[in-house]
Amino acid sequence: MEKEWNIIEVLRHSRHDWLNKLQLIKGNLDLNRIDRAKAIIDEIVVESQNESRLSNLQLPAFAALLMKANWENYLFQVEYEILEDTNAIRVNERELVTWANLFFDSLNASVAMEAENLLAITIVPLKEGARFFFDFRGIIKEKERIEQFLIDVSRFAIETSVKEFTEHELAVEVYSP
Amino acid sequence: MEKEWNIIEVLRHSRHDWLNKLQLIKGNLDLNRIDRAKAIIDEIVVESQNESRLSNLQLPAFAALLMKANWENYLFQVEYEILEDTNAIRVNERELVTWANLFFDSLNASVAMEAENLLAITIVPLKEGARFFFDFRGIIKEKERIEQFLIDVSRFAIETSVKEFTEHELAVEVYSP
Repeated sequence: MEKEWNIIEVLRHSRHDWLNKLQLIKGNLDLNRIDRAKAIIDEIVVESQNESRLSNLQLPAFAALLMKANWENYLFQVEYEILEDTNAIRVNERELVTWANLFFDSLNASVAMEAENLLAITIVPLKEGARFFFDFRGIIKEKERIEQFLIDVSRFAIETSVKEFTEHELAVEVYSP
Repeated sequence: MEKEWNIIEVLRHSRHDWLNKLQLIKGNLDLNRIDRAKAIIDEIVVESQNESRLSNLQLPAFAALLMKANWENYLFQVEYEILEDTNAIRVNERELVTWANLFFDSLNASVAMEAENLLAITIVPLKEGARFFFDFRGIIKEKERIEQFLIDVSRFAIETSVKEFTEHELAVEVYSP
């Protein structure tokens, strides 16, 4: 019954998220801020479109990783955007998932707990492979963790390049053939 | 990656349902029916509470069956209500799931496609076991399918009793020790 528990847990998290959004809409309606409520609905629709695009990429393990990221109690929030609605992209998914898991864990171990930490991920599907931009804003306390991560993934087939790396920002670009 | 596909499929269905609800709220806001929009939100919250109660019963296979029922393209809609928020109930879940699968399939094979068919399920947790009320409203074209089903489950340990059985209504009560 493990599979069923999984479904129930996933729906529990998802329901919780949706009810929070609904609460936000309701709160604004109660204050008679109708336009704000409508704007929130529009934002949610865009967010859902991104989730739908992510599903369409045919990268089940990577998609599941991103969709579940905010249920993992990381010290940072994850947002993602897929720049184009593509039916399937061919990337080295196994390595990408390992990369992303290592990155999330290293980032989690290095950021300041009390800060507002946000990791924004942008996915650009290409004819051959895809580019992934990981932009972190927040407070990084232990840079060594990230540095170690960058050494660890340097032997990977997917290419990692650091665009920005300060106490408040980390921008990493990944190309997977 | 089957597990991940599962998660993605479940979230795809769930997202679709939630976006429909959101659309309904948005549509009413656009027509300036603020009170109707608020009422819909309240209805959704109650629905979610039932889903949450269903999860809490600790019957993963049965819960997954009900939660996914409306994604299976049955010729009837499924609604459910759990009368009490209980932490766990002890029932013969394996048999209950077999029973419910057989019932859904028989019902699906017997109802009229063009009708508005609704199956309302009420779950009453008891100290020992639970009672399940399956109330169908719609059009039953092939009563024999249901009759055969009732014969098939008569050897089950869970008790099935028919309360009403006409062309337009079928009410079945199930007690699982």
